[in-house]
Amino acid sequence: METQEALYQHINRFAKIGHTEFSEIITYFDVLMVEKKEVLARSGSKCDQLFFVAKGCLHSYFTDQAGVEKTIKFAIEDWWITDFLAFHHQRETEFTTQAVEPSEVLRISHNSYEQLLNAHPALERYFRNVYEVTSGAALMRMKYIFDYSKEEIFNRFREQFPEFVNRVPQYMMATYLGLTPEYLSKIRGKKLS
Amino acid sequence: METQEALYQHINRFAKIGHTEFSEIITYFDVLMVEKKEVLARSGSKCDQLFFVAKGCLHSYFTDQAGVEKTIKFAIEDWWITDFLAFHHQRETEFTTQAVEPSEVLRISHNSYEQLLNAHPALERYFRNVYEVTSGAALMRMKYIFDYSKEEIFNRFREQFPEFVNRVPQYMMATYLGLTPEYLSKIRGKKLS
Repeated sequence: METQEALYQHINRFAKIGHTEFSEIITYFDVLMVEKKEVLARSGSKCDQLFFVAKGCLHSYFTDQAGVEKTIKFAIEDWWITDFLAFHHQRETEFTTQAVEPSEVLRISHNSYEQLLNAHPALERYFRNVYEVTSGAALMRMKYIFDYSKEEIFNRFREQFPEFVNRVPQYMMATYLGLTPEYLSKIRGKKLS
Repeated sequence: METQEALYQHINRFAKIGHTEFSEIITYFDVLMVEKKEVLARSGSKCDQLFFVAKGCLHSYFTDQAGVEKTIKFAIEDWWITDFLAFHHQRETEFTTQAVEPSEVLRISHNSYEQLLNAHPALERYFRNVYEVTSGAALMRMKYIFDYSKEEIFNRFREQFPEFVNRVPQYMMATYLGLTPEYLSKIRGKKLS
């Protein structure tokens, strides 16, 4: 019940949906209780699902040519996660989506997502806002990576999102910020000493 | 007239809008004929405008700590461009948006954008789709930068978007891909020899 409530609250930050309408909306979703490290979508498969994190943390990663797993995106509470381009075009994804922590997740298939938006057009406004912010956040992340030295990237990121940095494993954070885990480890050592 | 027609066609790729409704929609926009290098929005000012490129090419850049202008985003025909996060929150932007080529642009203020979406809710669907793709494209760009060597980034990008690479100045393309202009120049030399 708490899991669904998280989505209800989040929708109502951007659109007006009453409890009655929401009780119909929620039927389009599956509720998943996932364990740490559980895989929700796998690289190489058709990207058919979109996930909302009600509690916990997910990430999407790919394995680079040297065999290193690199986190391309995190999602904590109230974030949506998938390979949005592959989801939009209903293509194969190159990303694997996995739980970083035990998590409570709402899952919707692409087919249900389209039906949902047709049946409840007020959600177009909600998702427009969600993606507007997601597009903007992606530009700011790029600016971080392009503007700052490797050391500054991590320190500034930690200043801005301290709780988040403490929640996720160091090696994931490193790849997410375009650093090597060794480099991040060195920076952290310096800071603590 | 052609400028407006570009937006009409693009909206109809994602939503159903007839000519009558479109003739109301278009009144929310200003049509701009901009010269090469003309600045449309300046870093340090409130991000109050969203731009649609009907013809030509715009880019948004910031000046890094070493004084280098770095392109954070390009927009060619049918792309929207602004600092989406600053636009959403109506905050100051760190990006300057400028014409790369002589361009035909439709401009809408944040206030008009909100009024437009309230008056024509079918456009929520259109923008939801636009931003869904934008969010996905941002993840793929990040994957490029994280997965490939500096040399591969450029070659793969050129293979996938040959016309685009030929349209924009080399130094802008280099910063957009996280390369130095010197590096890009070296790669190009190698390829051509």
